[in-house]
Amino acid sequence: MFAYQGRLNDRLTSTDAMLDVFAPSATVQRMLDVEAALARALAKAGVIPASAAAPIEAACHVDRIDADKLTAAAARAGNLAIPLVRQLTACVASQAPEAAKYVHWGATSQDIIDSGMVLQLRDALDRIDLGVAALCDALATQAAKHRDTPMIGRTWLQQALPITLGLKFAQWLDAFERHKERLAQLRMRAIALQFGGAAGTLASLGDAAQPVAQALAKELALPLPSVPWHTQRDRIAEAATVFGLLTGTLGKIARDVSLQMQTEVGELAEPSAAGKGGSSTMPHKRNPVGCAAALTAAARVPGLVATMLGAMVQEHERALGGWQAEWETLPDIARLCSGALANVTDMVSGLEVDTTRLTANLQMTRGLVLAEAVMLALGTSLGRMRAHELVEHASHKAVQSGRTLRDVLCDNPDVTGVLDERQLNALFDPANYSGQARQFVDAVLERYRAHR
Amino acid sequence: MFAYQGRLNDRLTSTDAMLDVFAPSATVQRMLDVEAALARALAKAGVIPASAAAPIEAACHVDRIDADKLTAAAARAGNLAIPLVRQLTACVASQAPEAAKYVHWGATSQDIIDSGMVLQLRDALDRIDLGVAALCDALATQAAKHRDTPMIGRTWLQQALPITLGLKFAQWLDAFERHKERLAQLRMRAIALQFGGAAGTLASLGDAAQPVAQALAKELALPLPSVPWHTQRDRIAEAATVFGLLTGTLGKIARDVSLQMQTEVGELAEPSAAGKGGSSTMPHKRNPVGCAAALTAAARVPGLVATMLGAMVQEHERALGGWQAEWETLPDIARLCSGALANVTDMVSGLEVDTTRLTANLQMTRGLVLAEAVMLALGTSLGRMRAHELVEHASHKAVQSGRTLRDVLCDNPDVTGVLDERQLNALFDPANYSGQARQFVDAVLERYRAHR
Amino acid sequence: MFAYQGRLNDRLTSTDAMLDVFAPSATVQRMLDVEAALARALAKAGVIPASAAAPIEAACHVDRIDADKLTAAAARAGNLAIPLVRQLTACVASQAPEAAKYVHWGATSQDIIDSGMVLQLRDALDRIDLGVAALCDALATQAAKHRDTPMIGRTWLQQALPITLGLKFAQWLDAFERHKERLAQLRMRAIALQFGGAAGTLASLGDAAQPVAQALAKELALPLPSVPWHTQRDRIAEAATVFGLLTGTLGKIARDVSLQMQTEVGELAEPSAAGKGGSSTMPHKRNPVGCAAALTAAARVPGLVATMLGAMVQEHERALGGWQAEWETLPDIARLCSGALANVTDMVSGLEVDTTRLTANLQMTRGLVLAEAVMLALGTSLGRMRAHELVEHASHKAVQSGRTLRDVLCDNPDVTGVLDERQLNALFDPANYSGQARQFVDAVLERYRAHR
Amino acid sequence: MFAYQGRLNDRLTSTDAMLDVFAPSATVQRMLDVEAALARALAKAGVIPASAAAPIEAACHVDRIDADKLTAAAARAGNLAIPLVRQLTACVASQAPEAAKYVHWGATSQDIIDSGMVLQLRDALDRIDLGVAALCDALATQAAKHRDTPMIGRTWLQQALPITLGLKFAQWLDAFERHKERLAQLRMRAIALQFGGAAGTLASLGDAAQPVAQALAKELALPLPSVPWHTQRDRIAEAATVFGLLTGTLGKIARDVSLQMQTEVGELAEPSAAGKGGSSTMPHKRNPVGCAAALTAAARVPGLVATMLGAMVQEHERALGGWQAEWETLPDIARLCSGALANVTDMVSGLEVDTTRLTANLQMTRGLVLAEAVMLALGTSLGRMRAHELVEHASHKAVQSGRTLRDVLCDNPDVTGVLDERQLNALFDPANYSGQARQFVDAVLERYRAHR
Repeated sequence: MFAYQGRLNDRLTSTDAMLDVFAPSATVQRMLDVEAALARALAKAGVIPASAAAPIEAACHVDRIDADKLTAAAARAGNLAIPLVRQLTACVASQAPEAAKYVHWGATSQDIIDSGMVLQLRDALDRIDLGVAALCDALATQAAKHRDTPMIGRTWLQQALPITLGLKFAQWLDAFERHKERLAQLRMRAIALQFGGAAGTLASLGDAAQPVAQALAKELALPLPSVPWHTQRDRIAEAATVFGLLTGTLGKIARDVSLQMQTEVGELAEPSAAGKGGSSTMPHKRNPVGCAAALTAAARVPGLVATMLGAMVQEHERALGGWQAEWETLPDIARLCSGALANVTDMVSGLEVDTTRLTANLQMTRGLVLAEAVMLALGTSLGRMRAHELVEHASHKAVQSGRTLRDVLCDNPDVTGVLDERQLNALFDPANYSGQARQFVDAVLERYRAHR
Repeated sequence: MFAYQGRLNDRLTSTDAMLDVFAPSATVQRMLDVEAALARALAKAGVIPASAAAPIEAACHVDRIDADKLTAAAARAGNLAIPLVRQLTACVASQAPEAAKYVHWGATSQDIIDSGMVLQLRDALDRIDLGVAALCDALATQAAKHRDTPMIGRTWLQQALPITLGLKFAQWLDAFERHKERLAQLRMRAIALQFGGAAGTLASLGDAAQPVAQALAKELALPLPSVPWHTQRDRIAEAATVFGLLTGTLGKIARDVSLQMQTEVGELAEPSAAGKGGSSTMPHKRNPVGCAAALTAAARVPGLVATMLGAMVQEHERALGGWQAEWETLPDIARLCSGALANVTDMVSGLEVDTTRLTANLQMTRGLVLAEAVMLALGTSLGRMRAHELVEHASHKAVQSGRTLRDVLCDNPDVTGVLDERQLNALFDPANYSGQARQFVDAVLERYRAHR
Repeated sequence: MFAYQGRLNDRLTSTDAMLDVFAPSATVQRMLDVEAALARALAKAGVIPASAAAPIEAACHVDRIDADKLTAAAARAGNLAIPLVRQLTACVASQAPEAAKYVHWGATSQDIIDSGMVLQLRDALDRIDLGVAALCDALATQAAKHRDTPMIGRTWLQQALPITLGLKFAQWLDAFERHKERLAQLRMRAIALQFGGAAGTLASLGDAAQPVAQALAKELALPLPSVPWHTQRDRIAEAATVFGLLTGTLGKIARDVSLQMQTEVGELAEPSAAGKGGSSTMPHKRNPVGCAAALTAAARVPGLVATMLGAMVQEHERALGGWQAEWETLPDIARLCSGALANVTDMVSGLEVDTTRLTANLQMTRGLVLAEAVMLALGTSLGRMRAHELVEHASHKAVQSGRTLRDVLCDNPDVTGVLDERQLNALFDPANYSGQARQFVDAVLERYRAHR
Repeated sequence: MFAYQGRLNDRLTSTDAMLDVFAPSATVQRMLDVEAALARALAKAGVIPASAAAPIEAACHVDRIDADKLTAAAARAGNLAIPLVRQLTACVASQAPEAAKYVHWGATSQDIIDSGMVLQLRDALDRIDLGVAALCDALATQAAKHRDTPMIGRTWLQQALPITLGLKFAQWLDAFERHKERLAQLRMRAIALQFGGAAGTLASLGDAAQPVAQALAKELALPLPSVPWHTQRDRIAEAATVFGLLTGTLGKIARDVSLQMQTEVGELAEPSAAGKGGSSTMPHKRNPVGCAAALTAAARVPGLVATMLGAMVQEHERALGGWQAEWETLPDIARLCSGALANVTDMVSGLEVDTTRLTANLQMTRGLVLAEAVMLALGTSLGRMRAHELVEHASHKAVQSGRTLRDVLCDNPDVTGVLDERQLNALFDPANYSGQARQFVDAVLERYRAHR
C-alpha cells in the first residue's frame, strides 16, 4: 500500500523537523494540549471540580482521536475544534461521565485553534532560530576563510570589478544578523495566549475569567496579552512576513550560488552527496539541487505571505474566510522557509570553491575589469582626464585585438614612463583592487561575534 | 493511531473527488501510467523489443512503490521522477531483467512529471466541468423561480433601489456561462503531451522520435503539440488563472449570500444539515459554513495564481525553482476551486429564502428607496426639476419624522392633484420598479438553455 | 489643458503629504541631495578640491533638470541615475567646468538611487508615525468614551453575544500599539546609507573610502551600515511588510465599520462632510467613502508586498529586474498605507454612533443572545445540565412563537421559582453580560498611556 | 519647473503608446466619450430632447475639465465620475442650461467608469495585438535564420545536450501563438458595454431602457451584453490574467537572453543603441537593459494579477474596495505588459548572435555533452550496456585528464574497431545530435504562417 502523509513534494522543500511541527497529528495534539491545560487551569481556579481535570487531561491524546471522523465533521462544522471537542467529550465521558461536562468550559473554538497554532509557531520559531544560528556560523566560517579570495563582481549579470568571495558571505551574514533581530522581536509579539470565549469577553467565566486566563497562560508558558485578539491578526501575519523576509535572502543566496555553478562559470559547487544532483550519463553535470529547493521556496512564499496579509481583513469578532485562510498558509510558509534554510545551510557549509575558475573568470576580459584601477593610478601623474582617455582608448584596442589591456598599455610610452612593469602587474592583480572588501568582512564578523 | 493523508483542513475547502485526483498515490500512478504508455509506444515503434513492454506495464502500479523511500530520495535528487524510475526499474528487473533496460527509454524526468500532471489536470477539468454544469443548473432554477421576487439592491453596502432576487442569480449564471467558455478553451490548450527527452529534442530516439511521440500521445489520448514545452509554462499557468477566475466568482456569490444571511438582514440561509453551522446554545445562529469555505478559497487562490505566473520565468531548457514551484501550487488551486464550487452549488441548490425579511428590508427605509420612481412619475406632470425638489424635500421630512415617504407625499396637494392613492401605492410597490430585471433574467436563461 | 501629476485615483487612496514624499520631483531632488552631500563629503575628506563642492551643490536642484529628457534617457540607460548624473554634470560644467569632473565621484547609480529612496522612506516613516499617533489617540478617546456602551458581538457574520463598542476600539488600539513597536524597530534597520561604488567595495576611493562614507552618512544624517547592501534587500522589503501589516489592520477596521454602517445595521456612520458619501436622490444613503479607501488599500497592498518579497532574489552585486521592481512598488505601498491611515483616522475621530440602533440590534433576537447568561444563572440552582435543557427548549419556543426568551421563561415555574423579575430583567440587560470587556479596555488604555 | 506626468519610471517599463492609452487625460476623455454617446443615444431613443445632445457632446472634452478640482472632489465622493458629471453639467449649463438637465441621464457612476475603462482596454488590446504580431514576426524570422545554428541546451543551469538556437525561438513563438488565441478569445468576452443604472436594472429609463442601451452600444461600437455586470468582474480580471500570461513568457525570454549575455557565456547580445546599456569605463560590458525591463514587468505583474483576482469578491450591486482596487491595477498591468513586449521585440529583432561563443561553449566540456550520442552509436555494435560502461569510464577519464572525450575514446581499440575517425568526428559534431530540433522549428513556423 502506498501511504504518504502530507504533500508528495514536502520533503523536497521542507525539513522533517518542520514537517513534524505542523503534521496533522501535531496540530490535533497541540489543540488537545490547550484543552488539557484549560482543564487544569479551571480546576486550579476552582471553576470546575478538581477531580474533573485528571480525566480530561488523560483523554487529551491524539491517539484517542478518529482522524477520518474528525476531518469529515470539520468540513460540516467549519473548523476542527468543534468536532474535536465532541470526540474529546465522548472520550472523557466513557471514563468519567461527570468530568465530561467540563470539557472546553468557557472557551471558544478559536481559543483552542489559535492557541494550538501559537504553540506550533513557537516550536517553528525554535527550529528556525537553530537553523539561522547554524547558517550564520557557516557563513561566518566561509567569510573568514575567503576573506582574501578574489573573485569578479557582477552587475546586470555582466562582469564589473573585482570583489572577494568573503565579501559575498559577509553580506549574506549581515542580512541574517538583521533576521535574527526580527525573529527575536517577532517572538515577543507573536507568541501569546488566545483566550476570549465566544465573543472575546470571557463572559461565561464571570469573575473567574482573569484567574483562569492567568492560570492557562502559565500552564502553556505563553504570555497573557492585554486583550484577546481573535480578529486582530497582525501577530500571525507578522510571522508570515518575517519568514518571507528570511526566504527572500535564502533565495538570493541560492540564485548567486546557482549562477556561479553554471558550467560556463564553474566557481562554486554544492557539496556532493550520494544521489544528489549527479548524472551518470553527463558526468560534467552537478545539478544545484539545494539551490533549487531554496529558489522554489522563494518563488512560493511571497504569494502565501500576500494571502496572510489579505486575510487580516477579518469581520467583527470572528471572521468568515480570513481566519480560515491562515490555517494551511502559515504552515506552508514555515515549512518552505525551514527547507530553504536547511538547504542553504548545507550548501554554504560544504560549498566547493574552485579557485582556478575564480581566477580564470577574473582574467577572461583580459584585464578590462581592472581598467578603473589603472586609470586611477595613471591619473595621479597624467591627470584624471588624460588617464581616462588613454585607458578608454587602450581598452577598445584590447577588445578589438584580443590582447590583454596590460600588453596594450605597455606599448604606450606615456604609460611606461609613469608605471614600471612591477607596478603594472600589481595594478592588474585583482587582489589589489578589492577596496574595502576586507574591512567590510571584518566589520560584519565582529558584529556577528558580538551577537552570538 | 492518528493517520491523515494530506493537509488537515483539506476537507473543509476541497472535495473528496479532487483530493483523490491529486492524492500522492494518484500523482505517482499517473507518472507510472506515462511510463507504461511509453513502453507500449516504444515497442509499437520498434525501438524496444515487443517483449519488454508487458513486464514494464505490469510493474507500473503505485502499490509497488515504497513511498517513504521515494520521497526521501526525491529530496536528494530534486524531483520525484528520478527515484521513481529507479524503483520501477528495480521492480521490473526482479521479474524481467532484460526488460528493465528499457524502462524510461528516451524520456526525461520532466516528460514523466509534466505528462502525469497533465493527466491529473484533465481529471480535474472533468470534475470542474461537472461541477460548473451542476452550479449553472442550480442557478438557472433559482433565477427562474425568483424571477419576480423583489429585493433591495445595495451599493456601497447601503440600500439603493429595488432589484429582484432572480437578477442576482442570473448575473452569477451569466458569469459562469463565460467560465464554461474559458474552461473549454483552456482544455484545448492545456491538455497536451510533454515529450522531449533530456534537452527537448528527442535526440536519443533518432529517427524513431516522431513515431514514438505519436504513439505515446495516442496511448495517453493526449494531443501531441508541435514542440515540447518544458520551459514554456503558459499552458499550466493558464489553468491556474482560469481556476482563479472561477474562484473569484464563487467568492463573490459567497460574500453576497453571507451578507444576506446576517442576523440583521436575514433574507437568505444556507440549507441546514446535521452538524452544519448550527449552535446548540445560540439557536438563532445559522453559521454560513459553505460561504466560509468559498471565501477561504477566494482568499487563498489569488496568491497561489501569482506564484504560478511568477514561476513562468524559467531558465533555459529546464528551470531552477520555477518548475518546482508549480508542483504543489497547481493542485492547491484546483482543490480550493473545486471545494468552493461544491460548497456554492450546495448552497445555491438548497438556499432558504425568507420572503418576509426580503419585504421587510425593502420597507425599512419607509419608501425612500422608491423616491426615484415617484420623482419620475411626478416629473411627467410637474416637470423634472420641480418633481426632484418636491421629492427631495419630502424625503428629508420622512427621515426626520420617521413617517413613510408615501404618507409625507400624501400631505402635499401638488402630489395628490397628480397621483391618486392607487397610483401612489403602485409606485411604492418595489415590484413595479425593478426595471429590466425580468428581461435580463430571461435573456440570461435563454443563453443558458442554448448552451446546455 | 488637463494636467495631473501622478495616477488619477491617487488622491482617493493616498494623502497629499505622502504623494509629495514620492512625487517625481521629490524622487529626483532626493537623489540630488545625495549627490550634493557626496560632493561635500568628498571635499571634506580631501578627495576632491574644496572648491568643487559648492558649484556641485548649487546645481543639485530639481528645477535644473529636464524631466522629459531624463525619463526618456532613463528608459535607454536602465535607471534614472545615469542620465541624471549626465544632466547634473552638464549643469555644473556650464558654471564651473573644473568642478564638473567631480560630480558623482566614487559612487555608483545604485548608491544614489537607494540612498535617495532611503531619504524618502524616512520622510514616509515620519508621516506614518504621526498618522499612527493620531489614530491611536482617536482610538483611545473612543475606547474610553464607549467603554460601557453595549453592542452585539458577531461571529460568522451572525449575532453572538454582547460585547462593548469600547472593546472594539481597544482591540484596534492594541494592534496599533504593536504596529508602533514594529515601525520603531523597522526604522532602526531600514534607514541606512547605501554607499559601495561600482561593485560594493568602494575601491575607486582607495584609502579615503571610509572617511568619505562616514562624512556622507553624517551629511545625510543616515546611519552607516557595516557593509553596503546593494543586493541584500531585507531592509526595504521589511518596510513593505510593516506597511502591509498596518494596512491589514486598517482594512479590518474599515470592514467592521462599513458592516456596521449597513442600512440594516445602522450602528455607526462615517462623519459627514460636504461632498462626502451623500446622495441627493437617496437621502437615506451614507456611503462609507473612507472605509472604501481603506479597503481598496487593503485589497491592493498584499500583492505589492508579495512583489517586494519576490524581488529580494537579486543577482550578484546588482540585480536584473528585482531591484527595478521596487522602484514604483514601495512608493505605491507607502501611498496606500498612508491614505488608509488618514481615512481611518478621520473616520474613527468623527464616528457617529447610533445608540438607539445599537440597542435595537441587541434586542432583535428577543433575548436569545443572552441565553447563555440565563443558563449560567439557572445552573447554580438547577444544575448545569437541567439549566441547559430548559433554556434550549425555551429558546426554540421563543424562535417559533416570536415571543421574547424572557417572556417564555417567565411562563416556567422552574425559572420563576429561582429568579425573580428583577433578577431576570438584569440577566437580559446586555450591559450585565459583557464579561471582561471593561477590564480589557482599561488594560489596553493603560498600556497606551504608558507608551505615549 | 520639473513636471512629469505619471510615475517617474513608467518609461523604463512601458511604451509611450500604452502610457497614452491610460494617461489621466485619456481616462477622463474616455468617460466623457461615454457621456457624449449616452446623450446621443438618449436623444435617438427620444428620451431626451434631440436638441440636448449636441451641447452635451460639445462639452465632452477633457480640456474643459479642471484636473485638480476633479481629483480633490473624487477623493471625497469616492470616485471620479461623480465630480466629473458635476463639472460636465456646469460646463453644459454655461452654454445650454436646458440641456444640462439631461447630462448623465439614467446612468450610474459605474456605467461611465466601467465603459470608459472598457474603451481603454480595447485600445490597449489593439496595441498589444500589434505588438504581439511584431514579436511573432521577429521570432519567426530568427527561428528560420537560426534553424540550424547549434547551441548547447541547459538544464538546472548546467550544460546538458545540444539543441539549436532556432528551437529556442520556435518555442517562444509557439507560446505566443497560444497567446494570440487567448487575446482573441479575451476580446470577445471582455469588451462589452456596462450600462445598468443605479442598481443594474435600468429602472429609471422605463420602457426606453433597451432602446437606449442598444443605441449606446452602437454609438460606442461595444457589444451589448445580456445583463449589466457591475459586480461580476470576470471580464476585467481575465484581461489581467491574459496580460499576466504574456508577461510571464516575456520574462522567460528575457531571463534566457540575459543568461546568454553573461560575460562568461557571451552567446547573445541585445542590439546596441546610443545610450543603451553601454559603459565608458567598462567597454566589455553590454548591460541587458531590455531584459531588465521585461524582468521587472515579470516581477511586478503577478502580484498585480493577484490583486485583480482577489478584488473579484465584490459586495452586492456595487463593491466597497474591490472595484476601486482595479482602477490603477489594471492599467499598471497593461503598461508593464506592453513595455515588456516592446523591449523583447526590439531585443529579438536586433539580437546579436556570437556563433564563435556558441561553438566554444558547445566544446567547453570537451565532448562530454555528446557522450550520449557516442554511446548510442557504439551500442548498436557493442550492446547498450557495454557501450554505456565504456563511455561512462571514458568520460570520467576525460574529466580527470582534461583531454577531450573523443581523444580518450580514440585510445580504446574497442571504439576504433567500430567507429573510424570520420564517424567519430561526425558524432562529436553537435549539429548531428540536435534530434528533432529542425522538425520542431518547421512545425511551429508552419503553424505561425497558417495563422498570420
